[in-house]
Amino acid sequence: MEALHQKIREQGIVLSDQVLKVDAFLNHQIDPQLMKLIGDEFAALFKDSGITKIVTIEASGIAPAIMTGLNLGVPVIFARKQQSLTLTENLLSATVYSFTKKTESTVAISPRHLTSSDRVLIIDDFLANGKASQALISIIKQAGATVAGLGIVIEKSFQGGRAELDAQGYRVESLARVQSLAGGVVTFID
Amino acid sequence: MEALHQKIREQGIVLSDQVLKVDAFLNHQIDPQLMKLIGDEFAALFKDSGITKIVTIEASGIAPAIMTGLNLGVPVIFARKQQSLTLTENLLSATVYSFTKKTESTVAISPRHLTSSDRVLIIDDFLANGKASQALISIIKQAGATVAGLGIVIEKSFQGGRAELDAQGYRVESLARVQSLAGGVVTFID
Repeated sequence: MEALHQKIREQGIVLSDQVLKVDAFLNHQIDPQLMKLIGDEFAALFKDSGITKIVTIEASGIAPAIMTGLNLGVPVIFARKQQSLTLTENLLSATVYSFTKKTESTVAISPRHLTSSDRVLIIDDFLANGKASQALISIIKQAGATVAGLGIVIEKSFQGGRAELDAQGYRVESLARVQSLAGGVVTFID
Repeated sequence: MEALHQKIREQGIVLSDQVLKVDAFLNHQIDPQLMKLIGDEFAALFKDSGITKIVTIEASGIAPAIMTGLNLGVPVIFARKQQSLTLTENLLSATVYSFTKKTESTVAISPRHLTSSDRVLIIDDFLANGKASQALISIIKQAGATVAGLGIVIEKSFQGGRAELDAQGYRVESLARVQSLAGGVVTFID
């Protein structure tokens, strides 16, 4: 997606060979117009997939997910990382290991909002090692629902997440595929 | 805002005299169409206020904030509750005390995204005791920026947050003002 590539080139900061900082438009400050374009793109890609729900994870997945949901006319659920006072029922949950933080955390969704008839599109801001995506897939399967595909804003293709999802047979659509951050330069696939 | 009142009546769950659960459309599952209406309403209310930035707090404030930013054509910043790997600079921060969780937490914004020329609209999903709003006001003032007003989706008017903000002279626009949750019934002001 050219508008996204351009934004990454202009405002992305390469912190290391592994870490791309995009806090100017995606995961701290957010560009709403760009999110609208991203949501429209995901909606176009998955419009024939019979999507009934979008699932994402707090916090940076919410903006692209909500714009996709607006276009497709379906609800968005964000998995919670922390216990909420008002989420008191038995939750569907899965564990996420963070390579960068070296910590395990739990993400959870209320079973009230996912049923076995749902066809779910997973949306997230980043795909790196894929641990967050695998946790969401686990939760969706626990609900008996179907994973119809994954829409990723920025994929770090040099990490293992994409390859694992491909091997599992999931449809993954990434709007920017980063081949390398070597030498402080963002190189895209294509 | 009638569409919001109706949604609260239909899908809100009164858990106690103090707690209204709206996880079906606002803070776990999100209704994108309703968020669009909410964003358009905030934009109409503040269109003549010279807003240059919207500030909210993760995670439930992001959806209404992004729709408001889309309409007004301004960026949205969400204050982070947890340390991020890529937010490495000195951060503007403030402490929030949660009455419901009896815990203190820190919220933070990067100073790169707020300047003294910014006129900021604060958007949040709930206003209760107002501790989150006061923390955001503190951060915006630390940046030397101006708080132009606050847009709140649901205000629990029987708690102290609204009265304190009024006394401080801030313009507060709440789309649903809950007078009482007594007896398991949601009673609105107006």
